[in-house]
Amino acid sequence: MKLTIIGCNAATPRKNAQTTSQLLEIKGNLILIDCGEGTQMQLRKLGIKFARIQHIFISHLHGDHFYGLIGLISTFRLLGREAELNVYGPKGIKEIITLQLKLANSWIDYPLYFHELNSTQSTIVLEDDKIRVSTIPLDHRVYTNGYLFEEQVGPRKINIEAANSHGVEVCDMENLKSGRDFTDSDGKLISNSILTLDPDPVKSYAFCSDTAYKEDIIPIIRNATMLYHESTFLESHKDLASKTKHSTAGEAAKIAAKANVGGLILGHYSTRYGDQNLFKDEAQVFFDNVYLSEDGKLFDI
Amino acid sequence: MKLTIIGCNAATPRKNAQTTSQLLEIKGNLILIDCGEGTQMQLRKLGIKFARIQHIFISHLHGDHFYGLIGLISTFRLLGREAELNVYGPKGIKEIITLQLKLANSWIDYPLYFHELNSTQSTIVLEDDKIRVSTIPLDHRVYTNGYLFEEQVGPRKINIEAANSHGVEVCDMENLKSGRDFTDSDGKLISNSILTLDPDPVKSYAFCSDTAYKEDIIPIIRNATMLYHESTFLESHKDLASKTKHSTAGEAAKIAAKANVGGLILGHYSTRYGDQNLFKDEAQVFFDNVYLSEDGKLFDI
Repeated sequence: MKLTIIGCNAATPRKNAQTTSQLLEIKGNLILIDCGEGTQMQLRKLGIKFARIQHIFISHLHGDHFYGLIGLISTFRLLGREAELNVYGPKGIKEIITLQLKLANSWIDYPLYFHELNSTQSTIVLEDDKIRVSTIPLDHRVYTNGYLFEEQVGPRKINIEAANSHGVEVCDMENLKSGRDFTDSDGKLISNSILTLDPDPVKSYAFCSDTAYKEDIIPIIRNATMLYHESTFLESHKDLASKTKHSTAGEAAKIAAKANVGGLILGHYSTRYGDQNLFKDEAQVFFDNVYLSEDGKLFDI
Repeated sequence: MKLTIIGCNAATPRKNAQTTSQLLEIKGNLILIDCGEGTQMQLRKLGIKFARIQHIFISHLHGDHFYGLIGLISTFRLLGREAELNVYGPKGIKEIITLQLKLANSWIDYPLYFHELNSTQSTIVLEDDKIRVSTIPLDHRVYTNGYLFEEQVGPRKINIEAANSHGVEVCDMENLKSGRDFTDSDGKLISNSILTLDPDPVKSYAFCSDTAYKEDIIPIIRNATMLYHESTFLESHKDLASKTKHSTAGEAAKIAAKANVGGLILGHYSTRYGDQNLFKDEAQVFFDNVYLSEDGKLFDI
């Protein structure tokens, strides 16, 4: 699983600071998470072949998380896209995009599907044999979801040595991978556990932006391999965090610790702080494995 | 009059190529013309104090001319703007902006006025004692206006030497500037033309993007000090220009020549051409004084 931070700043894009967008590569899927203004330019700047994006997940309809969506959708058409594109986001997102296309007397000639969300319960919004994506209902000034991206458990792995010694043929392999036992040429039943190894451990990534401190999300994100949790403020501005329904770096780290995640990425920094290491320092009081998101940074999860 | 090219490329923004936006400083007014995605970042990059922008003129509702508007309007609020902002553009522009604000549960707390246009005749849309702005109806795939920005004729200038020799007092100056004659202390009428000089010559700037070749605009833009006319294509792609209702560099120059403008700025280049000098070469066959727009370039008109 590879995560590229396209932009990680709060509120307004700056000269060298993009607003929220992340690109997740998971089991061969290329997924865009949020899409602030200028995301398409930043994708080009980072040399990312973004035509491969199949799914876009939008957390909420504040501008710093989706003003780049209409431009990206339009650019896909101009580049001759044929593959389908799925957009997941709060109810209303389809109306905004289609109104803009209508007034431009424009159209989208590739399959574009909107999946509008309005549930306040965690819901599976995408599932196939490789990945599962669920919402993480957050607490912000408008209806907002984070998203949990999970790899599905893969097939069991053949223990080549054991398989050879028991005379397993190639045509038996798929049955073994799916967990079945094996009957050898003498009619003897060999248990699957002798011939196979456990599948690769699955990984998961939880994206949580924007939100006030909300312990309700802990059961949903528990044991995630990596958590991104917004940290707009430091504890010194806890009053502002409460008022605007954002989190401090300390609060993000408390959530990370209580959910026992593998690592915590901070981001959505308010521009009032000069030094982003202040966020890391504050978070590490509560949780060890803290990373700072930076525009263009790649995390190998 | 100072014109800064914020972005000058067609269709989709690229890594180092912004879509259409220009900033015009005219008689103390700071005016934004079109607002492609990323305009606010480009304004910051160029070090422009954009809070001073009072009027925004949008030519048409294709994304490469207005996808940056909602972001700029939102950023003005986040920066604590109090001054009023006027947005001129095709009918529908208000609906797009207000829908996005509504779904974001957001608001604008500075005075924001939309002036929606739907006339196909040239119309004065802004006039005060210093400037006048009129629409230039264009021929594109959607309803589109260019804009003509004209300085108003200023007061006559006092001929200090003549005024002194005829005993003009300071309190008489305003009457002279407004064109009235003067009666000296002997009761003799002195003609205004003896005591004053002509006002500074007025300048004008015509912005025409996007449009097919349209001679109807010539009477509107005749003798403009400077004309910006889109040149998406070269003559070698005249078929594409016709089909998409754009112009070639040659066509832009023919309009410039027939309208007897002082200079021609080309722009809105298709990204299919590597060398922008090709546009200039083609235009100069028909018109001498040709300039190429470039992102960040300043024209002192």
